[in-house]
Amino acid sequence: MTPAFVSLPGVDPACVLCTQATGVPLWQDGAWRVIRAEDPDFPAFYRVIARHHVAEFSALLAPERTRCMDLVCRIERVLIEQLRPTKINLAALGNMVPHLHWHVIARFDWDSHFPQAVWGPRQREVAGGARARLPLSLDELDACVVEALRSRD
Amino acid sequence: MTPAFVSLPGVDPACVLCTQATGVPLWQDGAWRVIRAEDPDFPAFYRVIARHHVAEFSALLAPERTRCMDLVCRIERVLIEQLRPTKINLAALGNMVPHLHWHVIARFDWDSHFPQAVWGPRQREVAGGARARLPLSLDELDACVVEALRSRD
Repeated sequence: MTPAFVSLPGVDPACVLCTQATGVPLWQDGAWRVIRAEDPDFPAFYRVIARHHVAEFSALLAPERTRCMDLVCRIERVLIEQLRPTKINLAALGNMVPHLHWHVIARFDWDSHFPQAVWGPRQREVAGGARARLPLSLDELDACVVEALRSRD
Repeated sequence: MTPAFVSLPGVDPACVLCTQATGVPLWQDGAWRVIRAEDPDFPAFYRVIARHHVAEFSALLAPERTRCMDLVCRIERVLIEQLRPTKINLAALGNMVPHLHWHVIARFDWDSHFPQAVWGPRQREVAGGARARLPLSLDELDACVVEALRSRD
């Protein structure tokens, strides 16, 4: 996939999130982009990624932090409304890739790792795959996410 | 330790975070409390916990979300300034205890799990223990965190 964001200021050519497009791109503005991670264990797994290279949340200005978490919250609300998950997991870790990105993950009591973190030990196999258990397709879910991100509310 | 917060409205008597005080209590206001988790592997591990029983971040009103993340950010900045960690990890999971709480964790490339998540597989033993590697005592670090939380800036 074409790395669409490398001409921005604040890009680190050694950073995979600056230079490579991973996942399914859904939406972007000048400061943020949202993708769906393609994880078979956790199909409803989205990321809000800073378009500039910044490692830590606290490096943002207050309105940037508010904007970032508003995007996270919009995605979270779509996942809750559409999927009725057992829990939403939010995280900004960045140990592997120190470029600010928020994980927004719908978790279910039947999923492969629940109640462990997605980074923890697998608890079970999910017969038929996790994706088949969602009440709508990922295309439909993505469309709801994009609509929420575009909303001016 | 005395469960100090059980008389508030919005308390779930079945919820451990509503009814039990865990960790080292450092600061609170009417809506939030901050503790230091007592984790020998991750000594610089703080939590911002909602004082009312709410499961998901998106259940908060916008100003409540901003306030919550401002507290998280204040702690993060103290950890960066005082410890110069390799990375800060932020997370609100709640799979085990579905009561909103944010983990704020200073991570080091030498710590027991780095670069894995703290919920992931252990990578190494830390000779002498992690706490001994910090450049200041936990009492001193706690004092800096409390000062940052009390600040009106």
